[in-house]
Amino acid sequence: MRKLIFLFLLSSLILVSACSNQSAAPKAKYVFLFIGDGMGTNQVYSTQLFKAALEGKADLAELNFTTFPVQSHMTTYSANSRVTCSAASGTALATGNKTNNGVLGKDTSLTINFESVAEKAKKAGFKVGILSSVGINHATPGSFYAHQNSRGMYYEIAKELPLSSFDYFGGGGFINPTGRDKSLPDAYQLATEAGYTLANTVEAINSLKAGDEKVFAVNPGIYPGGDFYWRIDNKEESLSLAHFVKKGIELLANPQGFFMMVEGGKIDWACHSNDAAASIHETLDFDKAVAEALAFYRQYPDETLIIVTADHETGGMIVGNGHEVNMGLLQYQNISAQEFGRTLVNFKENNPGASFDEVMALVQNHFGLDDATKGLELTPDEVKLFKTVYAELFKGDKGLNPDKDYLASNETLTLPDLALRVLSKKAGISWASNDHSGTPVPVFALGQGQSHFNTRIDNTDIPKIVGKVMGLE
Amino acid sequence: MRKLIFLFLLSSLILVSACSNQSAAPKAKYVFLFIGDGMGTNQVYSTQLFKAALEGKADLAELNFTTFPVQSHMTTYSANSRVTCSAASGTALATGNKTNNGVLGKDTSLTINFESVAEKAKKAGFKVGILSSVGINHATPGSFYAHQNSRGMYYEIAKELPLSSFDYFGGGGFINPTGRDKSLPDAYQLATEAGYTLANTVEAINSLKAGDEKVFAVNPGIYPGGDFYWRIDNKEESLSLAHFVKKGIELLANPQGFFMMVEGGKIDWACHSNDAAASIHETLDFDKAVAEALAFYRQYPDETLIIVTADHETGGMIVGNGHEVNMGLLQYQNISAQEFGRTLVNFKENNPGASFDEVMALVQNHFGLDDATKGLELTPDEVKLFKTVYAELFKGDKGLNPDKDYLASNETLTLPDLALRVLSKKAGISWASNDHSGTPVPVFALGQGQSHFNTRIDNTDIPKIVGKVMGLE
Repeated sequence: MRKLIFLFLLSSLILVSACSNQSAAPKAKYVFLFIGDGMGTNQVYSTQLFKAALEGKADLAELNFTTFPVQSHMTTYSANSRVTCSAASGTALATGNKTNNGVLGKDTSLTINFESVAEKAKKAGFKVGILSSVGINHATPGSFYAHQNSRGMYYEIAKELPLSSFDYFGGGGFINPTGRDKSLPDAYQLATEAGYTLANTVEAINSLKAGDEKVFAVNPGIYPGGDFYWRIDNKEESLSLAHFVKKGIELLANPQGFFMMVEGGKIDWACHSNDAAASIHETLDFDKAVAEALAFYRQYPDETLIIVTADHETGGMIVGNGHEVNMGLLQYQNISAQEFGRTLVNFKENNPGASFDEVMALVQNHFGLDDATKGLELTPDEVKLFKTVYAELFKGDKGLNPDKDYLASNETLTLPDLALRVLSKKAGISWASNDHSGTPVPVFALGQGQSHFNTRIDNTDIPKIVGKVMGLE
Repeated sequence: MRKLIFLFLLSSLILVSACSNQSAAPKAKYVFLFIGDGMGTNQVYSTQLFKAALEGKADLAELNFTTFPVQSHMTTYSANSRVTCSAASGTALATGNKTNNGVLGKDTSLTINFESVAEKAKKAGFKVGILSSVGINHATPGSFYAHQNSRGMYYEIAKELPLSSFDYFGGGGFINPTGRDKSLPDAYQLATEAGYTLANTVEAINSLKAGDEKVFAVNPGIYPGGDFYWRIDNKEESLSLAHFVKKGIELLANPQGFFMMVEGGKIDWACHSNDAAASIHETLDFDKAVAEALAFYRQYPDETLIIVTADHETGGMIVGNGHEVNMGLLQYQNISAQEFGRTLVNFKENNPGASFDEVMALVQNHFGLDDATKGLELTPDEVKLFKTVYAELFKGDKGLNPDKDYLASNETLTLPDLALRVLSKKAGISWASNDHSGTPVPVFALGQGQSHFNTRIDNTDIPKIVGKVMGLE
């Protein structure tokens, strides 16, 4: 009798416990936060349509993160503007606080340093990795470890990197490692003096292994500003973001767990230039980085959370201006605006008297434009525009500056600008501006705690949710 | 002993049952599908920012549907274009099938009539209501009861309305009730002959009551095309969409349940004209209609599902072109472009020699423009543009056509066009085109079955999900 009563109670207890377990929330030990800088809904959607076009699909093609079971959107405004910059948005995503545009990891009065979720995770015993495809002291990665009055204080941000004691920095190098006037102690040197191992060759990066601590791995294929070469330029010496994520998992995986932030930073840069093809190639590369996290998730599905989102949208990109969309046409662009500018400089030096047709052959080679077999024949009005820009290019300095922010203004339309504009139009993409917009951005979530993303959130919610699912608060 | 064993088993059974109830899915008896025609993410967000500005909030203001616990996004492309029209999208939303742009409720070969979820619900014993703020034989409402080769076959669509035997049609009237050349039997007459009660006065509509069957309630305040007067024009004789939803609930609520589709049709129309203020006022009105459903949901939370979405985005609206957003400035627009066009016609007739200042006084009265106290002073370039348009307006026929599609082309900029453009720019809104875009649209869900909307869906998924939660398939 007593046994039966005991059995009854035990059985009830087990069942009650089974019931309550359904709603209980176990903690996520491994959290990935992927931030596509400037990656709005249309940046993602154009990439899906591009992939679908290449695969000959009439419906959609999926990226890794577009298959995630929870997808919503997120507001991004800053404390002083409905249109955020990457510093204010980075600060929100890292610390859960709104601040003014330009400010990094501090409040609007510039007197309080906000603690980031990465700093909290580190304190709580998690390993921490911060990755980016642009300068590691740029606004988005910087938000997770630095606290400065201005995002432009690159050297001061770089000096804060080793103070974080984070376990892994990967991807981009330092912007201004010796300060703006190149006169200050080298920030790479300061990092190594503080105990960081600097790995900046393929061999050194590949030989990093589990157990290595305080690692700073820098892509050998970067521009002087610390950012990766453009993926569309397909330069062999430049490692992919995925390479750094894979290595990061190897370095950070441990029983206490980790927090890893991964920024795809050049989606934004491409969209500032209204360069749709470059944006798509950066997004595809970013998605490959997500694939590495996904492979890890499959090993630890109950303990892993992957979040993919953006800090803001850039360019006011809209897919489908009217009723014609031919995203597949963007496959014929094989060069970034930046590299095309450099190509033109060289070409002009070697061919000072080049004819319009010779220049247009270059345009055709790199953008497919005026190739009717590709569906890219130019209208007479477009030819006229190219003739005007050609005349400027070979008669003065206008229209030719490899370092300028292409498409930054209407007045100084360059040849790369014009090629991008015409190609965007034919592909069916329009742009509102060369700057950020205030449109809400998409959020994709998979894994432990994904249901926190069922509805619209604000960028300040991200670190709060991460903190909650990691048990940091 | 036996009693104890029985008690044990019973107790276990109750607990097991309690457990499994947590994951079982009871059916939704009452389903509301709200479709904001043209209502993309930025149409919603601009409305939230407008409301926030009026309420003096630095963060967001909420609409009824932006508080819903599940929010995601939805692709809208049609069978033959990445940019859908309302007919192809309506067909997808009503029947779960992609078709070509322009086609209503039929397949791409025009040989198969698709059955809509409304038709299935009616067959299954649910009451059905179809509501719109535009013509009830327009593409979106038509998709739920009609099957025609072209959305432009308004008369044929109107003739299908009574064949549906749906319980309630509410809001807009018929477009072309006697055919394109006004020579055919009156479609209203055909509906009443088929047993429908036509209520088209405030008194007749208000006296409709539970138990009334086959009701066709038409707003007394409509344009000849069957669409409601613009909400921004605030005309007393025009009932709100909420009025028709409230009446619909009264007529349709019954123990067997109902399906109600409610279209806010003029958000799209406003955005075709790039009229941000009109879009916001239409969205606010649409949200008030949602509030009626929300009040019903609160009575029957376990049996009600409310879905709010769009058929496509219109205009390629982007909030925040650069870093300035002042959505509150849109409060000073108190007239639709359509009514402002009519106002100008009358004004010109009565004041054929009106000065520029007299015309600008009208602009200031209706758009607040060049009123520095409102923060709407014009730049010298803007004044120059207004002078050019004024000169055209009072020297020829250009720039003055109350029935034209304002802002349809750059070449024929009218005074209403220009006022809208300047005001949009000052408020911080940009537009990609005067047409639909392909950008995914938001989805908001509340109630029984809301979790079906946790991730990105396609427009064809909507009737499938509705069918599932209503137990229709």
